[in-house]
Amino acid sequence: MKKMNFSKVRDCRLDRDSYFGKRMELVRESVIPYQWETLNDRVPDAAKSHCIENFRIAAGEAEGEFYGCVFQDSDLAKWLEAVAYSLMTKPDPELEATADEAIALIGRAQADDGYLNTYYTVKEPGKRWTNLRDNHELYCAGHMMEAAAAYYEATGKRELLDIMTRMAHHIDSVLGPEEGKLHGYPGHEEIELALAAMWRVTGDPVMLKLAKYFIDERGREPRFFDIEAERREGRKPEYRDPGYYAQWHAPVREQTSLEGHSVRALYLATGIAEVARETDDEELLEVCRRLYENLVGKRMYITGGVGSSVYGEAFTFDYDLPNGTAYSETCASIALCFFMRAMLGVDADSRYADTMETALYNTCSAGMSLDGKNFFYVNPLEVYPEASRKNAQYRHVLPVRPKWFGCACCPPNLARLLSGIGKYLFTIDGDTVYTQLYSAGEYDLSLSSLDITLKLKTDYPKSGEIRIIPSAGHYTLALRVPHFSAEKYSLNINGEPVTAKTCRGYLMLERTWSGDDTVMLTLDVSPRRVYANINVRDDAGKVAVARGPVVYCLEEADNETPLAGISLPQGSVFSEEYLPDKLGGIVELTANGTVAVDDGCDLLYRTTPPARRQTKLTFIPYYAWANRGEGEMTVFVREG
Amino acid sequence: MKKMNFSKVRDCRLDRDSYFGKRMELVRESVIPYQWETLNDRVPDAAKSHCIENFRIAAGEAEGEFYGCVFQDSDLAKWLEAVAYSLMTKPDPELEATADEAIALIGRAQADDGYLNTYYTVKEPGKRWTNLRDNHELYCAGHMMEAAAAYYEATGKRELLDIMTRMAHHIDSVLGPEEGKLHGYPGHEEIELALAAMWRVTGDPVMLKLAKYFIDERGREPRFFDIEAERREGRKPEYRDPGYYAQWHAPVREQTSLEGHSVRALYLATGIAEVARETDDEELLEVCRRLYENLVGKRMYITGGVGSSVYGEAFTFDYDLPNGTAYSETCASIALCFFMRAMLGVDADSRYADTMETALYNTCSAGMSLDGKNFFYVNPLEVYPEASRKNAQYRHVLPVRPKWFGCACCPPNLARLLSGIGKYLFTIDGDTVYTQLYSAGEYDLSLSSLDITLKLKTDYPKSGEIRIIPSAGHYTLALRVPHFSAEKYSLNINGEPVTAKTCRGYLMLERTWSGDDTVMLTLDVSPRRVYANINVRDDAGKVAVARGPVVYCLEEADNETPLAGISLPQGSVFSEEYLPDKLGGIVELTANGTVAVDDGCDLLYRTTPPARRQTKLTFIPYYAWANRGEGEMTVFVREG
Repeated sequence: MKKMNFSKVRDCRLDRDSYFGKRMELVRESVIPYQWETLNDRVPDAAKSHCIENFRIAAGEAEGEFYGCVFQDSDLAKWLEAVAYSLMTKPDPELEATADEAIALIGRAQADDGYLNTYYTVKEPGKRWTNLRDNHELYCAGHMMEAAAAYYEATGKRELLDIMTRMAHHIDSVLGPEEGKLHGYPGHEEIELALAAMWRVTGDPVMLKLAKYFIDERGREPRFFDIEAERREGRKPEYRDPGYYAQWHAPVREQTSLEGHSVRALYLATGIAEVARETDDEELLEVCRRLYENLVGKRMYITGGVGSSVYGEAFTFDYDLPNGTAYSETCASIALCFFMRAMLGVDADSRYADTMETALYNTCSAGMSLDGKNFFYVNPLEVYPEASRKNAQYRHVLPVRPKWFGCACCPPNLARLLSGIGKYLFTIDGDTVYTQLYSAGEYDLSLSSLDITLKLKTDYPKSGEIRIIPSAGHYTLALRVPHFSAEKYSLNINGEPVTAKTCRGYLMLERTWSGDDTVMLTLDVSPRRVYANINVRDDAGKVAVARGPVVYCLEEADNETPLAGISLPQGSVFSEEYLPDKLGGIVELTANGTVAVDDGCDLLYRTTPPARRQTKLTFIPYYAWANRGEGEMTVFVREG
Repeated sequence: MKKMNFSKVRDCRLDRDSYFGKRMELVRESVIPYQWETLNDRVPDAAKSHCIENFRIAAGEAEGEFYGCVFQDSDLAKWLEAVAYSLMTKPDPELEATADEAIALIGRAQADDGYLNTYYTVKEPGKRWTNLRDNHELYCAGHMMEAAAAYYEATGKRELLDIMTRMAHHIDSVLGPEEGKLHGYPGHEEIELALAAMWRVTGDPVMLKLAKYFIDERGREPRFFDIEAERREGRKPEYRDPGYYAQWHAPVREQTSLEGHSVRALYLATGIAEVARETDDEELLEVCRRLYENLVGKRMYITGGVGSSVYGEAFTFDYDLPNGTAYSETCASIALCFFMRAMLGVDADSRYADTMETALYNTCSAGMSLDGKNFFYVNPLEVYPEASRKNAQYRHVLPVRPKWFGCACCPPNLARLLSGIGKYLFTIDGDTVYTQLYSAGEYDLSLSSLDITLKLKTDYPKSGEIRIIPSAGHYTLALRVPHFSAEKYSLNINGEPVTAKTCRGYLMLERTWSGDDTVMLTLDVSPRRVYANINVRDDAGKVAVARGPVVYCLEEADNETPLAGISLPQGSVFSEEYLPDKLGGIVELTANGTVAVDDGCDLLYRTTPPARRQTKLTFIPYYAWANRGEGEMTVFVREG
């Protein structure tokens, strides 16, 4: 099995005004400080967090009761992970001191036997490990392990790493295949991928053993959660087989589709890929490939969103992708990025990067307002605000991003994704470097035989022009050509057209670079119409518009309503205009369309078709929607 | 205010093979006997009812606990009402004896003070009248009053009438405007219309006083249910203002739209209309007209279904009429027929009859399988069976009618509607008789100055030809021309074309009839396309097909799938064929259409539109769907 390396966050210097550079900056300047204040309950009108206070109480340094979700600890973990990435790219002694203090507090909250979880320590000390299915002990541990590995990488400080190593050993003493241990696994996956991260940093074999065990045990007969539920009082099962909700409906190696809670499913998939890689397990890797093919072929929104139903925040079934009732949680698309990165760690296949790019530029980006202060959990592809208020079927679909949430999963998850974006940009296989994402900046990369620097100049995805200046040396640049440009792109080196062989979506340029060479890759980001498979009922007769990796939408602020009455004729041509002052700078698309008009007939049903007239349609990037107050929005529009 | 009389069930002799005649027969032969068996828990695989047993326990004649919904008593009431109508049209001494026994049991279950409700008598004897909002005491009383009035009319036997008169007087001793009484009203309306029925039969002023009080008190400040809830422990409020759910969001005289639980809303509307009529209250009648205009102009499905959301089984907001997640409860369309009949009792306006006819031929009819053995509660306009199983958003939408329900509201409600259909056929204003529905048969009608008989010969709605032979005398025949035929119909008397003046949708034929005259009204029932208002988002770009009062649909059994991929071109012409052996005899419509085809590309998203090919589309009446196993169905289809 191939094992790629990844670009390192600390070695990636993204231009501050690039698409991701801007968002890293927002996270650094706004989200991380704001989140620290919420964790400490110092934001007057935000939902109570109590997260730091829970740790204080667990450490015996404050009086009080545990408050919050059973996974409240993970908020601090995600914050620490985001801080770690932030410190990698921009040292900040004050921030680091704050993080060190938080870590010291975590250490004091840890029990003597290594156990760490403020919910159980404070609230139900006698009930540790009695409800793995619902109560997130392993999930919280996983997030803290990810933070530990990142913080060690950022600062070289071992304290959190040691805390979480002790916790891992404690877990190993309680759970595992050995007699007398619980043969269990987490209800909410996360620790599998985190243990792989700990393994890579510490080399401690317990990490890999546990990760592999959790994957192999999951869904095996007799099913642990059935046994566990029998031990506790019975609980009403979830809709459908309860196993589907948390992916224990079948042994992992037999699973063929992503099922149930979409974040869990994708954290699991990531964990499977990581363990496959670390243990050279081809069979597990095949599971991941199968899950991916089903996902990308049948269960993903055009925006890289996943999770078709609010019930269980879950996948439903093949081709079931309703636009107006979509769940499409921000965290699920973040998890999809994790999964795709893990796959790129073993397979040099541009499709994984295409999918990651789709998720990043669309659902993940839509999760945060342009000012970094408001967040969506749910990312619908169609919104009618009155329905959100008055038809409970759409209750989960908010037309405007709220400030923060009591259950604060998505904002800190976005923070760690965006501040760590450097991890996702390049993969390295020997002396070949794969460009998985294109962002202006300077990137230091360690190949097998040499260290190199790539300079990228581009305002992608605004334009498709990507200029790369590779440092001197003999190595292969493998430039990804995204799916939308596969049949139309151009490549120049030092001004001369070049034909390169392609391999799984990459242009393979092996040569001895002079250090002064300029590679110019021009991708086709012209607007295109996108049609869903005929089995997607909600998109029948409709079309979406995309430009490069960016999916577009119609918003009420720019168009006549009701948006459902709009049609885009097949022959309409798109005009593109870059508007630097609109929505943070967007390429706006306009086209002639038609709209149903009120012709004065107030009948609910009638025998003459509604009158229509010409109208100008204005499309904006989906990621920029809901930044101008409340209004209708739709991604898919009728064609004809 | 005008006060029309109605045709009487006992005086209506519908042809057995007419549309409604067949269904009356099914109810008589199948539903009524089957329901009696379920009420007595003698059907092996049906849900437990315990209804009769509850009465036995309340009467002290059996040991045991109350079982069932708090409104379980109403099942027996609806059965008795259906039996009453059945006895009116076909005497059945055995059935009557059974009903008499049941009534005697009810009498023995009544408390000495007149109180009647097995739930409270058996289960919470100390808690009578403490939860009017949720616990249906007045609702059950109302249904039993309707049964009492009908049974008295059918048999002349006063026993149940006396029981319910005692109950009404008991209610009057507990509830009302007087000091020391509860200033309350029912959480689930029904008793208002029932008290009006009792008033007409008994002339007891308490009946009208209570009915009027319940309507006038509803929604007044301070709101009774708030006070009542404070007295009990608090309960989590419903979605939106809790008042909306049960129509106490505003005083009745200020209400402008039907809100909340659709059956409750329409029972209330019926009660308002009945009280308006009995008390000559023009203001209340205006409320009804307003509610009707909002309903028929903005909140009713093309099938006469109402209730856009499963949450609260409720109305949502104007133009919110989703097809796939519709609630459209059978009982709500039955209640709509009650409301329309009540309006026809004061206004000779054919629009009310049009709406009633739409509900009867579509949603009400679809509620029962063609063999009378299976029933829908929910009547969607679009079904995708896999979604019903795997996406909880569609969980309430069943693709196949189940046998019977634990909460057995719809089947017995259908039984009383269909067995009493004679009540809905004609209204009488002095010496004018209005034909509100057309069904072959012989009808005796008492006009002001004379008694007449009308013979109708027609197979409407199969054809639009209606032949009427009026008995001799001088009177006015007011023949309704349904909305779909308003601009195209013909009228002949004794073979000669006749022009008649029209008034609010009726052809007014005043003359001295010879007794040998034949009136021939030919309505245009040719297939037509129907478009929804442009504000109905779910129907944008789509068309429905209707023929006369019958709405059509596409079913998987006759068409290519997925149905979402089908389009009906604007120019396609319909062919009609009567198929006596298909689905009990239907007029099938066929037309050329197109369907999206699988062209071998398995991409989820692509840049070329899906290929399409010609296909024959087969439309069947909506009422006949789901009689051939599980499959897709849709009423609205894309046009173009």
